[in-house]
Amino acid sequence: MMQTLDIDLPAGRQMHDFVSELFPICRSLTGDGVRQTLEIIRKHLPGLQVHEVPSGTRAYDWVVPDEWNIRSARLTGPDGSTVVDFKESNLHVVGYSEPVDRELSLEELQPHLYSLPNQPDATPYITSYYKRHWGFCLPHNVRQRLQPGTYRAVIDATLAPGHLTYGEIILPGDSDPSGQEVLLSTCICHPSMANNELSGPAVATWLAKWLQGKPHRHTYRIVFIPETIGAIVYLSRNLAQMKGRTLAGFNLTCMGDERCFSFMPSRKGDTAADRVARHVLRHCAPDHKVYTFQDRGSDERQYCSPGVDLPMCLVVRSKYFEFPEYHTSLDDLTLVTPAGLGGSLAMLRLCLDCLEHNETLRTTVLCEPQLGRRDLYPSVSRANNLDAASLHMIDILAYSDGDHDLLTIAENVGAPLWTLLDTVDRLKAHGLLR
Amino acid sequence: MMQTLDIDLPAGRQMHDFVSELFPICRSLTGDGVRQTLEIIRKHLPGLQVHEVPSGTRAYDWVVPDEWNIRSARLTGPDGSTVVDFKESNLHVVGYSEPVDRELSLEELQPHLYSLPNQPDATPYITSYYKRHWGFCLPHNVRQRLQPGTYRAVIDATLAPGHLTYGEIILPGDSDPSGQEVLLSTCICHPSMANNELSGPAVATWLAKWLQGKPHRHTYRIVFIPETIGAIVYLSRNLAQMKGRTLAGFNLTCMGDERCFSFMPSRKGDTAADRVARHVLRHCAPDHKVYTFQDRGSDERQYCSPGVDLPMCLVVRSKYFEFPEYHTSLDDLTLVTPAGLGGSLAMLRLCLDCLEHNETLRTTVLCEPQLGRRDLYPSVSRANNLDAASLHMIDILAYSDGDHDLLTIAENVGAPLWTLLDTVDRLKAHGLLR
Amino acid sequence: MMQTLDIDLPAGRQMHDFVSELFPICRSLTGDGVRQTLEIIRKHLPGLQVHEVPSGTRAYDWVVPDEWNIRSARLTGPDGSTVVDFKESNLHVVGYSEPVDRELSLEELQPHLYSLPNQPDATPYITSYYKRHWGFCLPHNVRQRLQPGTYRAVIDATLAPGHLTYGEIILPGDSDPSGQEVLLSTCICHPSMANNELSGPAVATWLAKWLQGKPHRHTYRIVFIPETIGAIVYLSRNLAQMKGRTLAGFNLTCMGDERCFSFMPSRKGDTAADRVARHVLRHCAPDHKVYTFQDRGSDERQYCSPGVDLPMCLVVRSKYFEFPEYHTSLDDLTLVTPAGLGGSLAMLRLCLDCLEHNETLRTTVLCEPQLGRRDLYPSVSRANNLDAASLHMIDILAYSDGDHDLLTIAENVGAPLWTLLDTVDRLKAHGLLR
Repeated sequence: MMQTLDIDLPAGRQMHDFVSELFPICRSLTGDGVRQTLEIIRKHLPGLQVHEVPSGTRAYDWVVPDEWNIRSARLTGPDGSTVVDFKESNLHVVGYSEPVDRELSLEELQPHLYSLPNQPDATPYITSYYKRHWGFCLPHNVRQRLQPGTYRAVIDATLAPGHLTYGEIILPGDSDPSGQEVLLSTCICHPSMANNELSGPAVATWLAKWLQGKPHRHTYRIVFIPETIGAIVYLSRNLAQMKGRTLAGFNLTCMGDERCFSFMPSRKGDTAADRVARHVLRHCAPDHKVYTFQDRGSDERQYCSPGVDLPMCLVVRSKYFEFPEYHTSLDDLTLVTPAGLGGSLAMLRLCLDCLEHNETLRTTVLCEPQLGRRDLYPSVSRANNLDAASLHMIDILAYSDGDHDLLTIAENVGAPLWTLLDTVDRLKAHGLLR
Repeated sequence: MMQTLDIDLPAGRQMHDFVSELFPICRSLTGDGVRQTLEIIRKHLPGLQVHEVPSGTRAYDWVVPDEWNIRSARLTGPDGSTVVDFKESNLHVVGYSEPVDRELSLEELQPHLYSLPNQPDATPYITSYYKRHWGFCLPHNVRQRLQPGTYRAVIDATLAPGHLTYGEIILPGDSDPSGQEVLLSTCICHPSMANNELSGPAVATWLAKWLQGKPHRHTYRIVFIPETIGAIVYLSRNLAQMKGRTLAGFNLTCMGDERCFSFMPSRKGDTAADRVARHVLRHCAPDHKVYTFQDRGSDERQYCSPGVDLPMCLVVRSKYFEFPEYHTSLDDLTLVTPAGLGGSLAMLRLCLDCLEHNETLRTTVLCEPQLGRRDLYPSVSRANNLDAASLHMIDILAYSDGDHDLLTIAENVGAPLWTLLDTVDRLKAHGLLR
Repeated sequence: MMQTLDIDLPAGRQMHDFVSELFPICRSLTGDGVRQTLEIIRKHLPGLQVHEVPSGTRAYDWVVPDEWNIRSARLTGPDGSTVVDFKESNLHVVGYSEPVDRELSLEELQPHLYSLPNQPDATPYITSYYKRHWGFCLPHNVRQRLQPGTYRAVIDATLAPGHLTYGEIILPGDSDPSGQEVLLSTCICHPSMANNELSGPAVATWLAKWLQGKPHRHTYRIVFIPETIGAIVYLSRNLAQMKGRTLAGFNLTCMGDERCFSFMPSRKGDTAADRVARHVLRHCAPDHKVYTFQDRGSDERQYCSPGVDLPMCLVVRSKYFEFPEYHTSLDDLTLVTPAGLGGSLAMLRLCLDCLEHNETLRTTVLCEPQLGRRDLYPSVSRANNLDAASLHMIDILAYSDGDHDLLTIAENVGAPLWTLLDTVDRLKAHGLLR
């Protein structure tokens, strides 16, 4: 039963505006760009808590680095003309560049330049977080026209003890006695790139808004963090309370383009997150691409690491590494669209809906109940006169044995879980299921 | 190794006579037609016990309905001619019709008429067991020729407290210490239709006769019941003693035509019943159709329901729902043939044979025994000079480790279980297996 | 990642010389030919222990037979010419022939002659170990030219109480606290045939020499035995100490030709032996043939029998039964080559290497360690700039959860286990794995 995904275009337009507002800000692992970004998210989610972790703080095998802030940067040519300027694009400066103000020959400059011979018009995204370095990124076409002579490289940045900043919002579940949590994690450390990564914070924010507007059984833990070090810091502070309670997790990344959906499983591969993701994608995006955990590259590396073992998978559009605009200036506000964002939001909502409504059911009577006297079954019996709803009803009863959860029943029936919910509710109302 | 099914044609002819004798009787959920049918079965199985369960008796979620008996029925047209008459075919009256003697216009009559536009010469089989109703069933061709005017509908029936009637015969096993049972269940509630359902009682009766004429390890519980309510009533009275003891069950239905065999698994899908059915069908009817438990529609719905959990599967010819004559007057004594019935009987006998002879074996010596000195193996050794029997012998020894049953060994060997029995017996006679 | 098998040609040439030296000796289940063979092996493996088991000794269901020794044999034709003479080829006499010196007609002679109509130039290999018999084997072409007349059959042999002889060498493991053993078993009962079976003792001997020249964690139990009765005798004396300690076993047979490799699993199919064999063959001989345990025919019949249950599989070249020269005089020193032997030696070494290095690993830190500050990871991050070694490093860390062994990790990564060892060592040296 093919389902058409119900793209939320109004929300998609709002998310695109949000991405556009955040786009110019220079984010990095740390610094004021991250703070500005979280401030804008907090306008949408007033309950967002912002945490500051001092440089030098240990987190497992890592140490929080110095904070980086940059005010301006320019590379000037022998003739005094500007080669690249930070104010044109924050991608022009290697992330975490140390401050510099230096004249140097083209030959001396080359080890500090980064460009892409195969994408000569694009500026690449380069960082050097943990080794002191400085550099400029520029289109290969521009680089090739550089003439010998004396260049001046100026980067007005500070790299000094400060803080790593991240945000989190926890939406407590209504009444689930098991107190299970769903984790949504997204990155706020990428400078001006739209699909990877502003689409992630956008969908995370709009999922949080949607959850706040409706009852929900599970608790939702939504975190906005710098990649890798942020996840490690977050886990070092919160893993104890997350372990054993986290039912499912999704790393929200690369969700804004209109290309086909993609799935990457968790390390264990068969967690509740994986199961709902496969179920939803099978019905709503049967042409989705399937990756393996070998293809991981974002914070699932930390969340799924041995001993951490959180059930995190990826439901994304064009996966990082896999689309041509990845980590370049081409990943811009035209690649990401309202329809792309709105479709991803709809897809994730279905995943969360399945998690919310999945439960293990048991019939209350032995043998089939007499549905006819409850007007749940046609009274005149003839060949093949059962409609899909009646068939689903007897199938739900047949598999509600206390061993199969509703997701398994939906898989057996071949129907999306959410199309069975009315029938489940009717059977519960008649006291036939619990 | 393809096996030709050894159709029992003499028994097939006897079964066809039996079906022909039962065909004209008007059976329903209850009533004298059921009693007459059981009386005729009892001529073949003197040990058959007939049970009467009063109307109003509770059985799980159900209540035994009033008993229905019908003496005559006729629909007369405006010109006084007979449109349909019960004495021509008991399918002409909707099962469980309440008594009526009424004149009414064609327009008023229409909601009481049932026909099949796509099979205009066939009379459909319609019932309304649990909601008071009356009606006539007729060929669509006849219905379309009806002229406006005043019709007279007369059904001389009674619908009143009485009994639900069923039969059972239990054939105790010879000496099985585990006291396991095999359940054979078939329906006796269908009026004049041959494949669905007189073929079922016919094969059930002839299986019982065959079992009575030979030693058998397992106990056989053979029940002749009205569909659904009969199974539920039967289970409500017997489930406690059946649970845990029932090794396998088969719902005997749709066994009389000559089309290909079909298999439908139990809800759990891997019970002993499923395993022998798959084994026998793979060897003797490799072109059989395979259905899933989603395709169920007869008493396996009750026997396999959660908490009842009996290991029942279907080995049938053309499955209910799936053949064009299903639940119409076309399901008659020409669709069902001696060869069709005799083949089904043979197939079910093989299934029961496999259940009888399946056992977990263990060799009595470590390493291979010296077969040569027991004349079980050629004394002159040369390349590839082992015949199939010798190969089977060493394979049986190799897998008789106390973990694999003979059915698994037969699957490993790729041979039908019954072709290994002589070899197993020889090995036992030599003290090499137990 | 396809690996080219690194054939050990120098060792292959030495093994071919060894096979050539052993080829003329008349081996059988028992007798001086076996002793001579073991003596030659002992020149290479001074630690080899030779055991003599008296005729009449019981071993499970078997009894050690009388010892057979043959000095000469000749079949002379009516014209006094020699039809076949043992000194031309020891295959000309049926193994375990009783002594005979008799004149008889061609008709009387026929039941004592063995030839192959489909391979008219080949002499077949025939034995009659457990039933008194005598006979000559000859090319069918020669047999068909025999003229009526009086023949003289002379076999100067003795069949009398003596001993069954076998050899074993145990190479204790260095320091494995679990004290696990690897079993290598090969047959020394075949007369002048090269692939089946002198290739087996050759590879077994050279594996032992290789193991003696390097540290090894596991204990190696290497046995040179007559087929079937030898394995049964060996097990009857040693099973108690082998059970539970034997990690893996390989039956070394048919390893000398240059045709494709073959794999036959153990009875259980998923032992450590099966796993490493599949892993090595998948990478180094992706075109290998796969047999099932149904195709067994050598001592794995005993080692894998119920209750013995040793984890033995086969990694061979052209499997017994399957190559045209099998058990004939065509299985000679041209079929077996230095490259064939040297490739099998290399393949088995890789299997043993995998067993030696396989272990269950666990990371020492939560989340990924900071590889960059240990110079294990590039410091400048850009898209897709990880090389295979870096990818393997993070994959090894990701799967080292205390549940997966290195073999499983290698399968996940898609790389041969031995290509990961340097990376594992580096991670251990940095304290990141244990």
